[in-house]
Amino acid sequence: MRILIDVLMQYRFVQANTVTLVLEAAQMPGQEVVHADLDLGPAQISRIAGDSDVGQRIWARVPAGDMQLRYRAEVNVTRQSVPLSGLRAMQLHEICAEAAPYIRPSRYCQSDKFVAFVDKRFGHLAGGDKVAAIRDWIEANLSYVPGSSDSDTNVLETFAGRQGVCRDYAHLFCAMVRAAQIPARAVSAYGPDVVPQDFHALAEVWLEDGWHLVDPTGMCAPDAVAVIAVGRDAYDIAFMESQAPAGFLYQQVYVTRS
Amino acid sequence: MRILIDVLMQYRFVQANTVTLVLEAAQMPGQEVVHADLDLGPAQISRIAGDSDVGQRIWARVPAGDMQLRYRAEVNVTRQSVPLSGLRAMQLHEICAEAAPYIRPSRYCQSDKFVAFVDKRFGHLAGGDKVAAIRDWIEANLSYVPGSSDSDTNVLETFAGRQGVCRDYAHLFCAMVRAAQIPARAVSAYGPDVVPQDFHALAEVWLEDGWHLVDPTGMCAPDAVAVIAVGRDAYDIAFMESQAPAGFLYQQVYVTRS
Amino acid sequence: MRILIDVLMQYRFVQANTVTLVLEAAQMPGQEVVHADLDLGPAQISRIAGDSDVGQRIWARVPAGDMQLRYRAEVNVTRQSVPLSGLRAMQLHEICAEAAPYIRPSRYCQSDKFVAFVDKRFGHLAGGDKVAAIRDWIEANLSYVPGSSDSDTNVLETFAGRQGVCRDYAHLFCAMVRAAQIPARAVSAYGPDVVPQDFHALAEVWLEDGWHLVDPTGMCAPDAVAVIAVGRDAYDIAFMESQAPAGFLYQQVYVTRS
Amino acid sequence: MRILIDVLMQYRFVQANTVTLVLEAAQMPGQEVVHADLDLGPAQISRIAGDSDVGQRIWARVPAGDMQLRYRAEVNVTRQSVPLSGLRAMQLHEICAEAAPYIRPSRYCQSDKFVAFVDKRFGHLAGGDKVAAIRDWIEANLSYVPGSSDSDTNVLETFAGRQGVCRDYAHLFCAMVRAAQIPARAVSAYGPDVVPQDFHALAEVWLEDGWHLVDPTGMCAPDAVAVIAVGRDAYDIAFMESQAPAGFLYQQVYVTRS
Repeated sequence: MRILIDVLMQYRFVQANTVTLVLEAAQMPGQEVVHADLDLGPAQISRIAGDSDVGQRIWARVPAGDMQLRYRAEVNVTRQSVPLSGLRAMQLHEICAEAAPYIRPSRYCQSDKFVAFVDKRFGHLAGGDKVAAIRDWIEANLSYVPGSSDSDTNVLETFAGRQGVCRDYAHLFCAMVRAAQIPARAVSAYGPDVVPQDFHALAEVWLEDGWHLVDPTGMCAPDAVAVIAVGRDAYDIAFMESQAPAGFLYQQVYVTRS
Repeated sequence: MRILIDVLMQYRFVQANTVTLVLEAAQMPGQEVVHADLDLGPAQISRIAGDSDVGQRIWARVPAGDMQLRYRAEVNVTRQSVPLSGLRAMQLHEICAEAAPYIRPSRYCQSDKFVAFVDKRFGHLAGGDKVAAIRDWIEANLSYVPGSSDSDTNVLETFAGRQGVCRDYAHLFCAMVRAAQIPARAVSAYGPDVVPQDFHALAEVWLEDGWHLVDPTGMCAPDAVAVIAVGRDAYDIAFMESQAPAGFLYQQVYVTRS
Repeated sequence: MRILIDVLMQYRFVQANTVTLVLEAAQMPGQEVVHADLDLGPAQISRIAGDSDVGQRIWARVPAGDMQLRYRAEVNVTRQSVPLSGLRAMQLHEICAEAAPYIRPSRYCQSDKFVAFVDKRFGHLAGGDKVAAIRDWIEANLSYVPGSSDSDTNVLETFAGRQGVCRDYAHLFCAMVRAAQIPARAVSAYGPDVVPQDFHALAEVWLEDGWHLVDPTGMCAPDAVAVIAVGRDAYDIAFMESQAPAGFLYQQVYVTRS
Repeated sequence: MRILIDVLMQYRFVQANTVTLVLEAAQMPGQEVVHADLDLGPAQISRIAGDSDVGQRIWARVPAGDMQLRYRAEVNVTRQSVPLSGLRAMQLHEICAEAAPYIRPSRYCQSDKFVAFVDKRFGHLAGGDKVAAIRDWIEANLSYVPGSSDSDTNVLETFAGRQGVCRDYAHLFCAMVRAAQIPARAVSAYGPDVVPQDFHALAEVWLEDGWHLVDPTGMCAPDAVAVIAVGRDAYDIAFMESQAPAGFLYQQVYVTRS
């Protein structure tokens, strides 16, 4: 499937500063960036590899004033949507170095607190069946309520509060799956089926042969997603961070099937 | 019902200090202290009224060395076990000054975080039916696991962890009931049916005509409980607090029906 | 000193609901409400005693639509500004029932976490000298930054973040003073010297002969403050809480010396 | 400098299970493992690369019963103790992919909460001078108190509590240095100067030309430390984790200069 991405952002900075941007679709197995164009005006750009070597992280030195960003890309998504059911989870001693960091807790995902709940509720299941049940439970038990969380909300609050946005769904999924000692990581992505259109957060889980995309909100299928970056949680995949205060002016994310 | 209480405690203090003791059965409607005897050896004792004027709080100035405490009492419990079902909850504007502080969050009971969950899970119920459903849910979903929590555990951790001891059951109950804007407070008590025998924590909820005892662990019926103290949460009803470090030597709580 | 208060508030409610209002100056020793007028239009009002019997808490049943509130009062403040230095702190065993709840932690004030810091930094001081040093430390080490905190910010975050608004100053003060086992409580008030003009939060500390007003922000002197309410922390003294979502339209607090 | 390591551990497992061990000295620039011997009896062992490719993580499948572990090694430490003062910090846009994850918060190190404090207290300094001042501040302001923290203690609690053990010192250091946007990570290590002898936690900071070891407790100099592993915080460098409950029997860490 071909996905067209068109992002427009305007932010105001009262002083020159360095902005971290993590918003380019990643060149990686399962998706090919056919064409991409990033226009940041007079900013000076450098790139480093993203976390776990997925995608790239941009350091942009921007002058004071209004930053106008436009990012357009066409991505050919070749990954398939594989049902999780029946997929085997690695035994703990089989987990590879690439996946090992993602069975541990992180800033927003205190997975260590969920061991008993996950055991009680999903302990009769294993592997992909367990992961699928966790995903279904989250979609069934959380309400998607824009504005119900902020950048400080952690997964203990989300679990009690039973509402959130895509980041919170992804966090709770990662926390519960890690509590089952299955590696799970946060993913930022573009999807044509995200409503309302915006940067999207979902998750990847390591089963059997590698990472599998999962959307706890139920919005996106893996074959209709262009991945940007991966990480332990929202802090690792934030689409923009600014050293100096940033004044929001305008932002539009527009994703379509081509 | 008559309840006999016999408590033996030994703690070692390396220096003279002041100890707060909240362990005497309260003289209050629903229970009559027929006989009580507190032996604290050479300690100097003064008493003040307990929180919300229930029971008494002891300030004990104890010399350095081993504090030997023995408390024996006979309590005639006259309160009845009233079914919660069918009891009416006060409308918010009917809540009296005595109950009003107990609809608000406290140190361990962040009830503000549970509004959406309580609304989603119990929103179709009202009054005593809602409270009874919350109580049943907690007993069904938590596991009583000695050692699974400590004095720092809060209700967000308990809700995720799904295990705890009586204090955690009482905290989660208070948090959820307060989230429904029904007053709930923590209660310390003696009960002959507490297994293993120890100081016990349960809760009171304000419905219709006043406070009603509820035991989220399911161990004790209201007519077989001798209340010691009430408060917002475990901090207000701790049976002992010491200014200086206290070395635990021995403790035995023995409660029987006479 | 005479203080004139004039408050105008407009909030929009999409449905009829009950609103808690804690905004009337309290009739209490140290201040006399000479004249007061509360206009809430078609709302039905009932009052209960405030926490610790200070002031009153209003339950207002308001119809759907725009709530227009106007509160005007004239308060004669007779309390003196007493220097804290030299005042004696009660020994723990001398603390009375009225003050005892206020040496314990609360929702936002985890005073139990500050014992070592307070001992290390202020342990050489006692009584009013210690309290004054804590107050001075807070004013010197925090920056008053509107918007730097929200209603979920607790005192651990404030202590690390080193900024906040009046509620955060009051919380940190209460947490540190309680960690020294001196009773401290949060206070809401009107003051002509609050900049910018708004509802104000400060604190009271129990020394020697009773409660003493302290403003950790340094804005107000005790003899130029009209107290509204007291409590363990911000939850107990919030000027308004609404059951249903409340849309903010307008709010103005205007306080002058007469 | 040559360091001799001798570790003896005994744990009891009621069932066969997988244990994660991160306790072998790493083969890496700055230290050479001259000789190493790990005896785990009948356990089956596999190794994966450690976080950031430093050292190795062992998956050990151990049978039910008593696990007897002995690890002996001789490490030739060739790294120098370089003074931090005068070292340049990278500009944000110069930070490489290897270091970038370590400017972000983690489970125990909520560095996002310390930005204002670090700016206020250390904002006049830069680079290695700033890092050295942070280290000195921590050593001066924390007290090393065994038992004052547990595995759940986070850096907000440590900052308020002003006491801890080596993990807490390392966490607070990482949190503050990251708040200054300088990469910092947790390090586990062996040091002959650790008192009392045990596994040790310290930190690394990225300055100028790479990672530099720093011991916030002041116990160890970089040239007298054998590094085991690195990570975001204590969760990534725990010397042992067990799937099943582990009964502690015996543990001795013995490190000497050869």
